[in-house]
Amino acid sequence: MDNSLGKLFTMTSFGESHGRCVGAVIDGCPAGLAITEADIQKELDRRRPGGGVAATERSEADRVEIISGVFNDRTTGAPICMVVWNEDVVSTDYEKIRFLPRPGQADYTAFMKYGGFNDYRGGGRFSGRITATMVMAGAIARKLLAILGVEIVAHTVAIGGVTAEAKSLDEIRKNRVKNPLWCADPKASREMLGLIEAVKKEGDSLGGVIEGVALNVPVGLGEPLFATLDGELARAMLAIPAVKGVEFGSGFATASKKGSENNDPFTLKDGRIATASNNAGGILGGLSNGMPVVLRVAVKPTPSISKSQPTVNIKDMAPATVTVKGRHDVCIVPRAVVVVESMMALTLCDLALRAGLIPRIIA
Amino acid sequence: MDNSLGKLFTMTSFGESHGRCVGAVIDGCPAGLAITEADIQKELDRRRPGGGVAATERSEADRVEIISGVFNDRTTGAPICMVVWNEDVVSTDYEKIRFLPRPGQADYTAFMKYGGFNDYRGGGRFSGRITATMVMAGAIARKLLAILGVEIVAHTVAIGGVTAEAKSLDEIRKNRVKNPLWCADPKASREMLGLIEAVKKEGDSLGGVIEGVALNVPVGLGEPLFATLDGELARAMLAIPAVKGVEFGSGFATASKKGSENNDPFTLKDGRIATASNNAGGILGGLSNGMPVVLRVAVKPTPSISKSQPTVNIKDMAPATVTVKGRHDVCIVPRAVVVVESMMALTLCDLALRAGLIPRIIA
Amino acid sequence: MDNSLGKLFTMTSFGESHGRCVGAVIDGCPAGLAITEADIQKELDRRRPGGGVAATERSEADRVEIISGVFNDRTTGAPICMVVWNEDVVSTDYEKIRFLPRPGQADYTAFMKYGGFNDYRGGGRFSGRITATMVMAGAIARKLLAILGVEIVAHTVAIGGVTAEAKSLDEIRKNRVKNPLWCADPKASREMLGLIEAVKKEGDSLGGVIEGVALNVPVGLGEPLFATLDGELARAMLAIPAVKGVEFGSGFATASKKGSENNDPFTLKDGRIATASNNAGGILGGLSNGMPVVLRVAVKPTPSISKSQPTVNIKDMAPATVTVKGRHDVCIVPRAVVVVESMMALTLCDLALRAGLIPRIIA
Amino acid sequence: MDNSLGKLFTMTSFGESHGRCVGAVIDGCPAGLAITEADIQKELDRRRPGGGVAATERSEADRVEIISGVFNDRTTGAPICMVVWNEDVVSTDYEKIRFLPRPGQADYTAFMKYGGFNDYRGGGRFSGRITATMVMAGAIARKLLAILGVEIVAHTVAIGGVTAEAKSLDEIRKNRVKNPLWCADPKASREMLGLIEAVKKEGDSLGGVIEGVALNVPVGLGEPLFATLDGELARAMLAIPAVKGVEFGSGFATASKKGSENNDPFTLKDGRIATASNNAGGILGGLSNGMPVVLRVAVKPTPSISKSQPTVNIKDMAPATVTVKGRHDVCIVPRAVVVVESMMALTLCDLALRAGLIPRIIA
Repeated sequence: MDNSLGKLFTMTSFGESHGRCVGAVIDGCPAGLAITEADIQKELDRRRPGGGVAATERSEADRVEIISGVFNDRTTGAPICMVVWNEDVVSTDYEKIRFLPRPGQADYTAFMKYGGFNDYRGGGRFSGRITATMVMAGAIARKLLAILGVEIVAHTVAIGGVTAEAKSLDEIRKNRVKNPLWCADPKASREMLGLIEAVKKEGDSLGGVIEGVALNVPVGLGEPLFATLDGELARAMLAIPAVKGVEFGSGFATASKKGSENNDPFTLKDGRIATASNNAGGILGGLSNGMPVVLRVAVKPTPSISKSQPTVNIKDMAPATVTVKGRHDVCIVPRAVVVVESMMALTLCDLALRAGLIPRIIA
Repeated sequence: MDNSLGKLFTMTSFGESHGRCVGAVIDGCPAGLAITEADIQKELDRRRPGGGVAATERSEADRVEIISGVFNDRTTGAPICMVVWNEDVVSTDYEKIRFLPRPGQADYTAFMKYGGFNDYRGGGRFSGRITATMVMAGAIARKLLAILGVEIVAHTVAIGGVTAEAKSLDEIRKNRVKNPLWCADPKASREMLGLIEAVKKEGDSLGGVIEGVALNVPVGLGEPLFATLDGELARAMLAIPAVKGVEFGSGFATASKKGSENNDPFTLKDGRIATASNNAGGILGGLSNGMPVVLRVAVKPTPSISKSQPTVNIKDMAPATVTVKGRHDVCIVPRAVVVVESMMALTLCDLALRAGLIPRIIA
Repeated sequence: MDNSLGKLFTMTSFGESHGRCVGAVIDGCPAGLAITEADIQKELDRRRPGGGVAATERSEADRVEIISGVFNDRTTGAPICMVVWNEDVVSTDYEKIRFLPRPGQADYTAFMKYGGFNDYRGGGRFSGRITATMVMAGAIARKLLAILGVEIVAHTVAIGGVTAEAKSLDEIRKNRVKNPLWCADPKASREMLGLIEAVKKEGDSLGGVIEGVALNVPVGLGEPLFATLDGELARAMLAIPAVKGVEFGSGFATASKKGSENNDPFTLKDGRIATASNNAGGILGGLSNGMPVVLRVAVKPTPSISKSQPTVNIKDMAPATVTVKGRHDVCIVPRAVVVVESMMALTLCDLALRAGLIPRIIA
Repeated sequence: MDNSLGKLFTMTSFGESHGRCVGAVIDGCPAGLAITEADIQKELDRRRPGGGVAATERSEADRVEIISGVFNDRTTGAPICMVVWNEDVVSTDYEKIRFLPRPGQADYTAFMKYGGFNDYRGGGRFSGRITATMVMAGAIARKLLAILGVEIVAHTVAIGGVTAEAKSLDEIRKNRVKNPLWCADPKASREMLGLIEAVKKEGDSLGGVIEGVALNVPVGLGEPLFATLDGELARAMLAIPAVKGVEFGSGFATASKKGSENNDPFTLKDGRIATASNNAGGILGGLSNGMPVVLRVAVKPTPSISKSQPTVNIKDMAPATVTVKGRHDVCIVPRAVVVVESMMALTLCDLALRAGLIPRIIA
């Protein structure tokens, strides 16, 4: 296990889905940053199921507590530990399927890696619930990035094959909060909601694509060769359960283009160097170039579906079927939007500190 | 700068395109591994331009020298330093365009990050030539992985919009070496070669997609939450210049599927657990599941093109144009195939050591 | 701040003296290790003031809670978070001396480094109370090391200039538990106790020397050049507040010897290679050599004394005096014995994992 | 093996005593620092045997070559690789004693750890020659620290029981260069030289103590809990072969003092806070306090002596004797003075970068 991320701004995640809590420790946060539990709660609440038919029915309040590192509502320079205590836990469902690994889940691989000692209840350490630790930590990173004027906005661009139209940044900011899917295209979001409803009735699930945008990122973030901005972001995105791909700027589409089409010409804008287009997604040579940092992640359909699925009983090594009961999201994409933002924030924050752009004391 | 990769099997890259050399240090390699310069040279030669019209005309021999860590043709446990001395260097071309950042290159971002002190000749540290250090290091990783029976095979699956048909692994192994593009589909490769020839005449360039497959990877490689197998592979892929996206298994296509279509059912095969399909690309919960690990990377078209391009003179802060002379690949995809394999090998090797699967002494 | 120790077996410490808690997260612990709160409590209790006149009067129960990573009394492979909630906190004493840095304490340096935002109550993050996090984490490391048969024994060898006579290991094991000072020499311990009593009346304090011994350490622990066994142990020892020096084997005495006196001749013992003497303290070339690993640490006298001391008011930048009230140990040496053992255990455990000597799954 | 030191300013050492070279890679050095081979050579030359009777007779020129990372005599931000090619190598002596581990050397532990695959010639990776890599890297660190005004001065304070009198810093600077022992006490140095001469005739060897002082260190260097200034320095010191102990300020002597004697009172000096004494050696709570950082290391007598010594033949597992021929220093203390300075510089430089005190671009 390697549950720490970041070199100077380090987040250590702990906790399990059906254990006592989920939590995170931030180490390396500059002293003097104003932070309250409300700042973190605000982001955590965005992760809660608010998506109507898309929502899980698990109903915890998920109240965060800061248990170290903050004094008089300011960071002290000491490690910040935050926890959310688990409350609404029903674990009996999982006992029945302990030796029946659910397709698409980490049950089998975790069993093998940890010799069956892993906490299998609700996916344990591999549950989507672990993303709450990313959001807690990310909330602090965002507060720190705000000092540099960095803003991070993610939104749903596709669900189950329904694709949102490209929108301007202003529209994205304005529209995404008007529907439970964090989608900036009202028309597409209605269609997505309909699809989710239909698929829910089938007992099936849907995936999608989230786009994350970071604005006002200073030029030069990233530490090539092996801690490039895109490399670090990619690793962070793939820590989010269910993410199966990540691309930057024009991404996979760039592979079909010619150099003359894909190169973003340099130009002057308000006396500063910019690029006329942004196929690069704000990243050249693994370094931010001052344009918006744009990435997209592919989220697979929730593996937990009500339909009976073929599996193998690990104990008996015999063919079997498994039916997942419990409470599950038809589509986790909307809830993952804030997680994408959080992981982007953690990555940018660490690289900004490494680049010497954030002071060690926030006055 | 962060030029080291890996926690237990660590590769540190150094050198510049037009400096004295490019090189790599491997630290953490178990003692007793048989290794000769020929083992490394074999992989390095695959990176050389052999792709006819796709090839750069730079004609160095690229002879590797092992200057530490190997004694009597076996690793000693000490750090292994390897260098390739640069020979055929013509740097005058670059002086003219020192303050004219080439679109799509790292010239501008490197200038900003390093205050203009970076070695700008031939892209310096950001040159594709740096991938030679990845290949040297990867060659040792591959030897080590061979102990576990792990085999890594990459091949070109698209260039400039021409897409290869899916082939069986046997066909991939057999066909990819029969054309200079490392493409397993003979028909597509001919078409790709024609396209490259045409685009070369235009003074333009092409991108493409490479697929990498790792076979016989033991179950349980990866260290969640933040050093997952896919996360570490993604970061490694994005260290390769020109890569703009990475996906695993069904990747972005998974976003349009339903859970019932995307979940890979568990099944018994030769008395062992396998999955009937491999949409997961061999990775569940950030851990290898015993199936082939499959990834694809999007490679952007070579930014260096002969066509005149708009830019800004960084010194004068005035609009300008830049025309790149020098010698450049129309399409670097074929040469990047061995680089993808090398970075996969480095990643898998480090994770295998972390999982305790490779002994510290190779008898 | 850098509050994580260890590369594969990583301990992250958090919490403050007068905050809500002190705690630790262990990441990288193999799965399947039997562990209960009682195992940890047992070590924590040794750190409690039991030293009669040497004791602080702070009377917390210091009950540890494991809040993640353990399931059915076994480690799961997931991060293990442990906390001790602070109870008996009186912070008002410290408000008065907020801007009066106490000589010998971290008040001044912490104020400067964290811009005055540090939690200054009771020394905050720099309090001796933080060693509880080392002991919690060390308790798990010890359980893991027990698998290899490694035993760690520390004892007090000097207090305030009173020096214990050298004793055999059996005597150390037997005698050290018979007095509140963890001293193996009954005569010296009586003298030390008398001295402590006398110095307490003066309102002054005493330092001392602790010796730590690790037995049955396998040959080859340590990762030269920069993670040598002695180097890692030294760093760990100096993380303990008040430690000002560390030496191995004959240590500083070795500097006055000739090579012929200091070299430990190799010899055969029960068919295995041993050394006839152990001036090396079990370490050659930064690697364990199979002999007992022996270190000694110098502990300075507790800086908190009742006597009035000259200082400078940081706010006014004016000369001042400070008198420390609160509850303080005359001599922390006895309570630091278990801390030395814990930090040795953490270091050895990490290096044993790095050397591949501890399996990833404890059956 | 773990041959990298430092988190932001990282030094990776490679090479062997009788291999092709010894070398180092510095990663993370800010761009724009003026550096030439002469800067490094100057420090390397101090490590050469210049100590008359104390000197080894190995006569290499030890010319450093910078092979990457420097362009137009300035650092570029890219990794800096430096090598010294080995020239005067006579390895046949060592073949005879391959299976006869020399007492006090790493022969036995290295054989065990690396399964006999280690390069045993001249101690291979465990040779004192490896300290050349520390000096090369340290030379760059010193140039960087000079920007902050930090000066590092080490000197010999004891050899073979002969102890130098304490001298003022000015005297140390002036006197230490006047004798081959880097000792600031002319009288003691004469006595030490006589002792070395006598012991050489016996075929024996001597150890000693080196004191290192760092001046003008800014307040707040160090990253508690686990990368404290003293902890990091201690680990760095113990990477130097033959070092068996390290202490800070009053060190082990502090253990016999009372708090009222040992606490350094705060006082105002030129309008800034200082301490009236410096028992703390410039370090409080693991952080620099603005006073001189003072450490002392115990160096054991050179284990290679001409006298016949008992050992065990590892191959036959039979008692044997070994006589070390080759060329060896009677006392390596004088040559280690620059090594102590170099390791101090590397540590301070990394911590200064971590504290945000060194800009990423040196204008």
